[in-house]
Amino acid sequence: MPPMNDTDLAFASIEEVASLFRKRKLSPIELTKLILARIEQINPKLNAYITVTAELALAQAKKAETELFAPRGSKGHRDRGPLHGIPISLKDNIYTEDIRTTAGSKILAKFIPQHDAAVVTKLKEAGAVILGKNNMHEFAYGVTSNNPHFGPVHNPWDLLRIPGGSSGGSAAAVAAGLCYGSIGSDTGGSIRIPASLCGIVGLKPTLGRISVEGVIPLSPKLDCVGPLTRTVHDAALLLEPILPRVKGEPSFRSSRTLSAKPPKFTLGVPKEFFFDVISEEVRLMFTEALHSVRAPKVRIKEVSLSLLEETEYAGNQIAWAEATHYHQQSGCFPSRSAEYGEDVRTRLALGTQVPATTYLAALETREKFIQQFHLALEDAGVDALAVPTTPIIAPLIGQEAIHLGDKEYSTRALLLRPNRPANLAGVPAISVPCGFTSAGLPVGLQFIGAVADEHLLLQIAHTFERAHPSQRRPSVL
Amino acid sequence: MPPMNDTDLAFASIEEVASLFRKRKLSPIELTKLILARIEQINPKLNAYITVTAELALAQAKKAETELFAPRGSKGHRDRGPLHGIPISLKDNIYTEDIRTTAGSKILAKFIPQHDAAVVTKLKEAGAVILGKNNMHEFAYGVTSNNPHFGPVHNPWDLLRIPGGSSGGSAAAVAAGLCYGSIGSDTGGSIRIPASLCGIVGLKPTLGRISVEGVIPLSPKLDCVGPLTRTVHDAALLLEPILPRVKGEPSFRSSRTLSAKPPKFTLGVPKEFFFDVISEEVRLMFTEALHSVRAPKVRIKEVSLSLLEETEYAGNQIAWAEATHYHQQSGCFPSRSAEYGEDVRTRLALGTQVPATTYLAALETREKFIQQFHLALEDAGVDALAVPTTPIIAPLIGQEAIHLGDKEYSTRALLLRPNRPANLAGVPAISVPCGFTSAGLPVGLQFIGAVADEHLLLQIAHTFERAHPSQRRPSVL
Repeated sequence: MPPMNDTDLAFASIEEVASLFRKRKLSPIELTKLILARIEQINPKLNAYITVTAELALAQAKKAETELFAPRGSKGHRDRGPLHGIPISLKDNIYTEDIRTTAGSKILAKFIPQHDAAVVTKLKEAGAVILGKNNMHEFAYGVTSNNPHFGPVHNPWDLLRIPGGSSGGSAAAVAAGLCYGSIGSDTGGSIRIPASLCGIVGLKPTLGRISVEGVIPLSPKLDCVGPLTRTVHDAALLLEPILPRVKGEPSFRSSRTLSAKPPKFTLGVPKEFFFDVISEEVRLMFTEALHSVRAPKVRIKEVSLSLLEETEYAGNQIAWAEATHYHQQSGCFPSRSAEYGEDVRTRLALGTQVPATTYLAALETREKFIQQFHLALEDAGVDALAVPTTPIIAPLIGQEAIHLGDKEYSTRALLLRPNRPANLAGVPAISVPCGFTSAGLPVGLQFIGAVADEHLLLQIAHTFERAHPSQRRPSVL
Repeated sequence: MPPMNDTDLAFASIEEVASLFRKRKLSPIELTKLILARIEQINPKLNAYITVTAELALAQAKKAETELFAPRGSKGHRDRGPLHGIPISLKDNIYTEDIRTTAGSKILAKFIPQHDAAVVTKLKEAGAVILGKNNMHEFAYGVTSNNPHFGPVHNPWDLLRIPGGSSGGSAAAVAAGLCYGSIGSDTGGSIRIPASLCGIVGLKPTLGRISVEGVIPLSPKLDCVGPLTRTVHDAALLLEPILPRVKGEPSFRSSRTLSAKPPKFTLGVPKEFFFDVISEEVRLMFTEALHSVRAPKVRIKEVSLSLLEETEYAGNQIAWAEATHYHQQSGCFPSRSAEYGEDVRTRLALGTQVPATTYLAALETREKFIQQFHLALEDAGVDALAVPTTPIIAPLIGQEAIHLGDKEYSTRALLLRPNRPANLAGVPAISVPCGFTSAGLPVGLQFIGAVADEHLLLQIAHTFERAHPSQRRPSVL
């Protein structure tokens, strides 16, 4: 490995950095300082962090360094694995002990949890260094991360554009080399959408598999947490400590394990829904990227899925009702309506209008969708669906409507559309960079797992990533 | 045992009849014919059956007789236990293969299921003889059994009065000696209310413990099925084949087992809610009956429970929303509104008005109630609550409002009030006869289990029953 400059280091993979630590060619404190300096310099342009915990991060880095750098075999030596000493960040709806957790809201602007969320506890046990808390769409209830209280998050590839959301700060920070990974949350696409629009990897795990204890809820029947990283292998490493281990599943501690035996797999491209409402540019990029994967053991076939439109409707009803219910129970809605941003306030009001019978029917639609989803994919012998993550590139900040052909669509509806199905089916889904438009803007390709197997999905995504290495770094910074 | 006349036989216990079978002093066919003859004679006054399956019952009795009466040790001999050859009936919302199952509705007046409900399969395996299907409140959605399509069910103790409901036909048939037991369903008191008003025993088991597969739903989050019988031991015998066996639980095949070792137990009488809205006559009967139990090992103490009023409200919201949802999904509401009785139609319309957020809040209230219920009863060291089953005696048919003191209450709300808490807590509850008013009308006492233990509850109820033997038979018939 040639010596790296600071920018190279900031964009290095977790595996590379971990290897440098173990060769004593780089120290966790040194690296943490480097990333903190980048945050100081670059974050004002991006607004990706609400809170930077520099002191705590340095203390954690020091502890990591003490453990890692103690002589091997000595009492003090401890190697907690690939995340040991790696600077990461957290979406600001994830509880951090003694560190304010705003959920991007004015209402919780001064809220300081007394304990860590379950995922944070596990990441700390794995030795990760936590740099701070990422800006986001208020209460995770939107996809632009155009935050009225803490200011909009800017897309590192074009500062006039949104990063997507709701985990927009997480994605911007990862894409800009302001951390090696971030934990976001995904209820209808909130990890995958910003991953797509920021040109990084975002994984929504199987519903219910990773604890959401200590994550401020949006819609408890759909909420998930998962990693945003620059590579599929980095996602695997961030996933490892937080995903309960299933016996017999491979460990991806080394990137070689991830790619050593690329499994034989079949990808399904749905005929319906995902390509009905999409920009021509994204459709072409998706098709070209997918069919350029020339791995000998990859098959691609058309599949047919039903109930997708009904499921989009059902997903909205479930999320609207549950979100409003949560904010009613917290005592904030409607009594503190004025403190919500306009868009969130409007959606919370919408949630009061959902009849219980509609909510129950939506839960039933979801059950039917889950059944037919598994039947259809099993019948087709498909391991994962391949679809666009977002039908469009990143819209401009403030652009609430998009024209496709002669029709106008809401930005929100467009970005959610290809993402909701995986939330309702409960299966894991991952967005990986698919390429750049002529204007230099990234867009993602989404693999949706046929079954609850994050490991197979990571292998599929890794095979695709190897055929599509993305070496670019945002030049605007 | 002295020889019995036909009426004695019709009112005998299941254990007595089973013993006569095994002594060859009575045959299942003979008994079935006797009960069928009683139904023919008495049912026109009561309207307790919608469908009498005389031919099938005789065929089942014949099979039972062939098995039971084959010489012991011969190949054909089979003794299926205490229910073998015993004539029972089923509420008409329980699926019976090839036998119409109306749920007391016009909409399903010609509906013929293609399979038995799970409980029916188990009862048939236990050798029970099924006499027919009992009249009920339409779709189990009410407590009067004043059925607009099949006519009102009459209370055997006063034909001008309701039997209660929704399992009113079941209770009337049991009380009048037109079967040895019946399976009813209970969502908010539908087994216990008619048991109370007809002077019999009715048990609602632990929520979810007995399969409701093949039972036409009212509110799936609350629906239970359970036995209505004349004695606690008969209830135990009817429960035995349908209640999944928990290791170590006693079998009550013999009434001696039920009473052999009366356990030491503590009964809690709640200070709140159950005695706030009650007729003076019922309050006095309850208090007198409870305190006359002089078993040396029974303690009675006051307990305090919170959230009861909130829970009544929550129970209504859950049931209204779920009932309407079911009738919307079945395609009948609102398109066939005119075919519902007026009261059910009104309640179904009410269900469309429940907001999803209210429904979700009701589910949360229920969770809180369950927690505090268990905490309070554990703190007090109480094995069961003792409360009135109904705050009033049977109202007149058509009497939709009741005066207590200077206030007017809806009959429906009054009868549901002491029953809903056990449905929401999910614990088992049993109503046992508590005595008769001066006008000769029965009323029940309800034991609500502190834990999911039907067997302990049966022992408690049996101890009470022994102190309060009810030898009366309805004289009006």
